[in-house]
Amino acid sequence: LASRTVTEQSPKLTFDELREALRQVGEERYHHRHPFHLLMHEGKLSRGQLQAWALNRYYYQSIIPIKDAIILSRSTDSAFRRAWRKRIVDHDGTDKAGDQQRNGGILRWIKLAEATGLDRERVERADGILPATRFIGNEYLNLVRTRPFTECVASSLTELFSHDLIALRMEKLRQHYPWLASGLDYFEARLTEAPEDAAFAIQYVFEHATTRAEQEGTIQALRDKCDILWAQLDALYFAYIEPGWPPPGAFRIADGAHEQAGRG
Amino acid sequence: LASRTVTEQSPKLTFDELREALRQVGEERYHHRHPFHLLMHEGKLSRGQLQAWALNRYYYQSIIPIKDAIILSRSTDSAFRRAWRKRIVDHDGTDKAGDQQRNGGILRWIKLAEATGLDRERVERADGILPATRFIGNEYLNLVRTRPFTECVASSLTELFSHDLIALRMEKLRQHYPWLASGLDYFEARLTEAPEDAAFAIQYVFEHATTRAEQEGTIQALRDKCDILWAQLDALYFAYIEPGWPPPGAFRIADGAHEQAGRG
Repeated sequence: LASRTVTEQSPKLTFDELREALRQVGEERYHHRHPFHLLMHEGKLSRGQLQAWALNRYYYQSIIPIKDAIILSRSTDSAFRRAWRKRIVDHDGTDKAGDQQRNGGILRWIKLAEATGLDRERVERADGILPATRFIGNEYLNLVRTRPFTECVASSLTELFSHDLIALRMEKLRQHYPWLASGLDYFEARLTEAPEDAAFAIQYVFEHATTRAEQEGTIQALRDKCDILWAQLDALYFAYIEPGWPPPGAFRIADGAHEQAGRG
Repeated sequence: LASRTVTEQSPKLTFDELREALRQVGEERYHHRHPFHLLMHEGKLSRGQLQAWALNRYYYQSIIPIKDAIILSRSTDSAFRRAWRKRIVDHDGTDKAGDQQRNGGILRWIKLAEATGLDRERVERADGILPATRFIGNEYLNLVRTRPFTECVASSLTELFSHDLIALRMEKLRQHYPWLASGLDYFEARLTEAPEDAAFAIQYVFEHATTRAEQEGTIQALRDKCDILWAQLDALYFAYIEPGWPPPGAFRIADGAHEQAGRG
């Protein structure tokens, strides 16, 4: 369906064909298949390993509104910008009083990191994250700065797959690591935010990628985005599971936090 | 010596102090200490693992002239540009007839990759490199696009350390993998190029980083550059040594190329 060698004569994919091609990318490359997540869902991670995950993934969370602001800055369409800015609000929250606890995805992620036992200020400074986490995350910013606009929008389409992963994860985290339960608001919110965002983005991509070649570009952008998520987990696995070698200067798991933390 | 918390009153480092601070960064973070290189130098890599290294490192080689062109593009000093452009010539070579074999660092690296048994066209397409190799390498381009100019120049100062690593590597490769001997021209050339380049760059950094804070920035830039090199080897180690899990779509070691290839 989504062969990489298309000619100018290749017919444009229908909406259903495009969606299927994107779904297939997710099946092959989305990080729901990554060994780090498999261990997490089996309850086999230590508290320290969950800390390393929460700390490093914080960096990724922290650049998402920057990524979305770059996309906003490249759109000349006010209607698009009105729709897309929701993402920035979802992540950065508002200053409304009384809504502190659920005030934006970044704060909710910090709450998760705190539930693992990490110090909030340390997380906010991204102190001790793997250099690879920063480098690989920054590639997402490179992508939305330099690629065709439909590809930038398409790179968000991992949200097509995130609902199922998050639903599974919440179940498994509650089951295996009940001491984390107070930190799961981030995922709860994403259960509804992500599908809304994905529905808008896939419609936009279908309407604005006007040739088959452009469509293939959007499919490739989703592959690249999946590779970014995957590579971040590779780096975590290497540093904190096997062989378990964090690079010079990175977060090290404390002596007391090495035991398997699941009860599954 | 090179504390990260300096005040405006902190005295500027002397040339020798600056060089010592940079040398110390290399001692702690340069990739001569990385387990991938240690295995290589002990003759414990398979032919397939050496192929994975040559293929992935090719991507890094291929962006070095782009990195140097970005630095050139940011300099308003013609004398600086005249000195710095040597690096691009060294890497991209010239069109002079009769000089084909030693025609630039990129071609010499391809020769090394061919000596491991890789197909030249595959290498030139960077076909099957780890996504992480691309993402982490691209961070070097981000660095020279966005950081203060003295930091961009300082990020090249891993060349202060490369001579010793390359001299050791040539000895060990000849000893353990004699079938690679025809591919070592790249390293031979770097033995003289790198120290010349480093001498210019450290002098430039000392003369143009005019405050202690600016000097600390250049030391940090060298740390960041070391982290880039280190993270690339982490990704290689994870994919091809332990646990040995290349990500979806990446180069896989052929069945016949798994045996340890050293004879040491």
